[in-house]
Order: sequence, then structure tokens, then C-alpha cells
Amino acid sequence: MAGKPHILVTNDDGVHSPGLRLLYEALKPLGEVIVLAPETPKSASGLGITLHKPLRLTRLRLWGGVEVYVTNGTPSDIVYMALEELTDHIDLVASGVNLGDNTSIQVILSSGTIGAAAQAALLGIPAAAYSIAIEEPEQLEADRETWEQAKKLIQKTARYILENGMPPPIDIISINMPSKMTPNTPVKLAPAARARYTQKIARGRDPRGKPLYWLYGEQIQPQPGTDVYTVHVEKAVAITPLRLDLNPQLKPGTRAIQWLQGLLQATR
Amino acid sequence: MAGKPHILVTNDDGVHSPGLRLLYEALKPLGEVIVLAPETPKSASGLGITLHKPLRLTRLRLWGGVEVYVTNGTPSDIVYMALEELTDHIDLVASGVNLGDNTSIQVILSSGTIGAAAQAALLGIPAAAYSIAIEEPEQLEADRETWEQAKKLIQKTARYILENGMPPPIDIISINMPSKMTPNTPVKLAPAARARYTQKIARGRDPRGKPLYWLYGEQIQPQPGTDVYTVHVEKAVAITPLRLDLNPQLKPGTRAIQWLQGLLQATR
Repeated sequence: MAGKPHILVTNDDGVHSPGLRLLYEALKPLGEVIVLAPETPKSASGLGITLHKPLRLTRLRLWGGVEVYVTNGTPSDIVYMALEELTDHIDLVASGVNLGDNTSIQVILSSGTIGAAAQAALLGIPAAAYSIAIEEPEQLEADRETWEQAKKLIQKTARYILENGMPPPIDIISINMPSKMTPNTPVKLAPAARARYTQKIARGRDPRGKPLYWLYGEQIQPQPGTDVYTVHVEKAVAITPLRLDLNPQLKPGTRAIQWLQGLLQATR
Repeated sequence: MAGKPHILVTNDDGVHSPGLRLLYEALKPLGEVIVLAPETPKSASGLGITLHKPLRLTRLRLWGGVEVYVTNGTPSDIVYMALEELTDHIDLVASGVNLGDNTSIQVILSSGTIGAAAQAALLGIPAAAYSIAIEEPEQLEADRETWEQAKKLIQKTARYILENGMPPPIDIISINMPSKMTPNTPVKLAPAARARYTQKIARGRDPRGKPLYWLYGEQIQPQPGTDVYTVHVEKAVAITPLRLDLNPQLKPGTRAIQWLQGLLQATR
């Protein structure tokens, strides 16, 4: 690779998340790091891009003088904004570190952290999404051992991707870290489970007595071998390769093929 | 099936889209139809669910007295709201008719129309997403032949799904209709292309002279056989089965497997 690699650092928790700073600190030694993040949290924004309103780009100084950029767009908008305004090419998009793991297809499909990585992948840019099973910013900031170990893991994996590229059919590497990281925390390859939560709704009332509803998730018992199990039961790091493809593999002669032929017939 | 099937009709263009009315009119003869849609357009909301604000549910009468419900949530919230408040079970979630086709993985992953269907699929409910390559509500309303032909296609496909269920590994049937529908419009099975657009950014200035940015997409030349080609070049209906799975199929001995082993080694 000629010159220092260009690394775009972004997230979906917003520019003030310690996870973004952790990612920046980890990747700074590896190349030219551009930080562009949403000004406010955009969790569960998924792969949605912003078509209905104008986007703005603002420069800030954070973390003792580091130049970072913020936008009112979603994580998925960011790679396009960065390529338009901040750099002529990007060798790696690193998204995170998300507060809260992005395990299971259910969570991945609605994750802004993965959304940013997915837009990069659609442009052919290697993309890594980092998440940690810690919900509270203060907890991540206070636990120095976890912080340092996470930093090492991010550095090692990002360096490997920069040196080796990302082979088809892999589009994104999603790395989910457990809530405690030590030098002995195992690292495993783990496919994404299908679902992690049963969605629930809590009913409430506003101050005027009108009904309102809050969505929340209730955890499902995870299956061994999945990303959810690896992070939450084994307390290990899960490395999950992702492919942006929702076309099912349909084997000839199966019921699904017959069903589709029947559906086609039914339209005649 | 005991009793009339329960069908949830929703969309991402909002309750005032003629596409929602088209879907309702098509499905009304098939069972008990519940209409619950976003109060405002939620295009490109993807599979994002709403965790950060309370949701509301309001009843309206539209279309000459039909009872419909609206919410401030996203399409992906709607199936949970409906199961909480409006019905004890759902036999089919029908989402659409989206104004603008949802072809290619790129568009599908950011589509609220598919988002609603995907949440249904995660609950094990058969889900059909309908979209048409017409952007303007007035154009859809004015073209009676296309309206009637679309209605027939929706009815036939939904009836088939209600009668036959949806076999694994299919989670969602996505049906994209061309801008003109006649009795001779062909119907084809077509896998989703990877991408449909190259994202572009237009720069502008606000009235105070500050820079702002608009995202837009520039079309890519579609590959024959794909959903994009079927709808836009062949002007045919594309039926695309989707599977909610982003885990890549990795064959032993391939470079991707060696690469992943190397990545694992690099973390040691």
C-alpha cells in the first residue's frame, strides 16, 4: 500500500460516546484517521440513509485537540459525506465501538453501527464493525483493563484487514466484545444467531392521561456456537463475517422451489 | 384455517399514500384486514425500531369510512403495536404498496417496507412486501388499468400465501411491479441485485450561506436476470424470495476460510 492507509472512524452512538474515542485511539497508530460521526445517537437507525433533509458537516476539537467532524445524518450517510468532503479514498471503514453488542441478525439488521459498515461494503471498501456488551458510557470509561484489551484487539484486527484486504464473499467483519476484557479473554469465530430478543411493548400514560407505548426487548435463550452465546454465555469475543445478501440458497427439488413455482402459477 | 384470516396492512410511505389504499382494497376480500401505518413517511427507515421515544396509536376514518390506525413509530414497530393492541394473531403481514420499487439488496436493506415484513418474519409470520416503480402518488391514482392489475396481482399472491404458508428458507416474498401494469405484464422470479445506485452528494447552501448536502442515487446499469433488470428493463413483475440471513456460505479450503483463520491468529 502506497502511503499511510486512510481509515474512516464512525459510529452510531454519536460523537460524544467513549466508544468512538476508544476506536480512534486504537486506530490512530495505523494510519491517517478521519473521524466523522453523528452529532446525536442514531442507534437502531439500521441501513437507512437520509433522503428527506439536508445534511450538515461541522468540525469540532475533542479529546485534547483531535479534529473530528459531526453530521446530522445517519451512520449510513457518513461514508458518502467523508468521500465527498474529507478524503479522496478510504482503505478501511471502522464503525463503533458500539455501546451494546450487535449480535444476531435481528439486531444486526437494525444496527446503525453495521449500517455504516454496510454502506462501505457496497462501495467495495473493507469494513469492520466493533461493539461491546457494555451499555453505560461510564462503565466503559472506568474499566481501564477492558479499555486497553479492547484497544489491542481492535488494533490487531484492523491491521490484519489493512494488510490482507477482505476476500469475497465476506463484506463486513463484525466483532462483538464481552463486557469484561482481559488478556485471557478467548476470541472465536461465531455465526450470527437469527434473533436475540422477543420484542415487547410496555404501556404507559403521558401526563395528560393519553396512552403511550415503549418498545423493549426480552432476551431469548441463546444457542451454543452463535455470536450471542459466545459474547453473553462464554464471555468471549465473537468475530462474525457478514455477507450483504438476502437471496436464499434454494436447492432444486425442495419444497421452497415447488412453492415458488406454485406462486408464479397463481399469478396467471 | 379456522375463521377469517387476519391480515395486517402497513407501509412506510405513511397513511395518506394511495399505495396503502391499493393494498387495503386488494386484501379486503381475503379476510379481516387491520390497517396500521406511520402517520408520516418513513422511507429509508430500514429495519430500525423505535427505542428512544414513546409511541402513540391513533384511530382515523379514511377512504369513505374505513377504520385505520396510525402511529408515530417506524414500519418495523408496527407489527408489535398491532399484536399488542389490535389483534391476538396475524396470518399475513402485507407491507406497501411502496411508491418506488424496492429492488437490489442495497435498497432492500434500507427499506421500511421490507423492514415491516422482516419484523413479521422474525415472529414467524408470513410476510409479503409490495412495491411499484411509480414515484408520484397522483400517477398511481390516475392510472386505473395499472391500479386494477396491481390489485389482482396482490390478491392472487396473498391468497396463495394464506393458503400455502411460506416454506423455509423463505422469510419474505418481495414483489416489485413495473410502472405500467396490463393483463399481459409478465411475472418472473428474480433474485435481488446487489446494488442499484451509486450514491452521490449534491452540495448546496442554506439562506444564510452555510454549506449543506443532499444525498441522492445515480442508477447503475442492471444485470439481466436481476430484480432491477426485470422491473426496469423488461417492465415485468419481479417476485423475489428473501431470507433474513447475512451469514456467508463459506466453503472449506477457500481463501475466505484461510483469511478468517489468519484473522483469528492475528488476535493472539
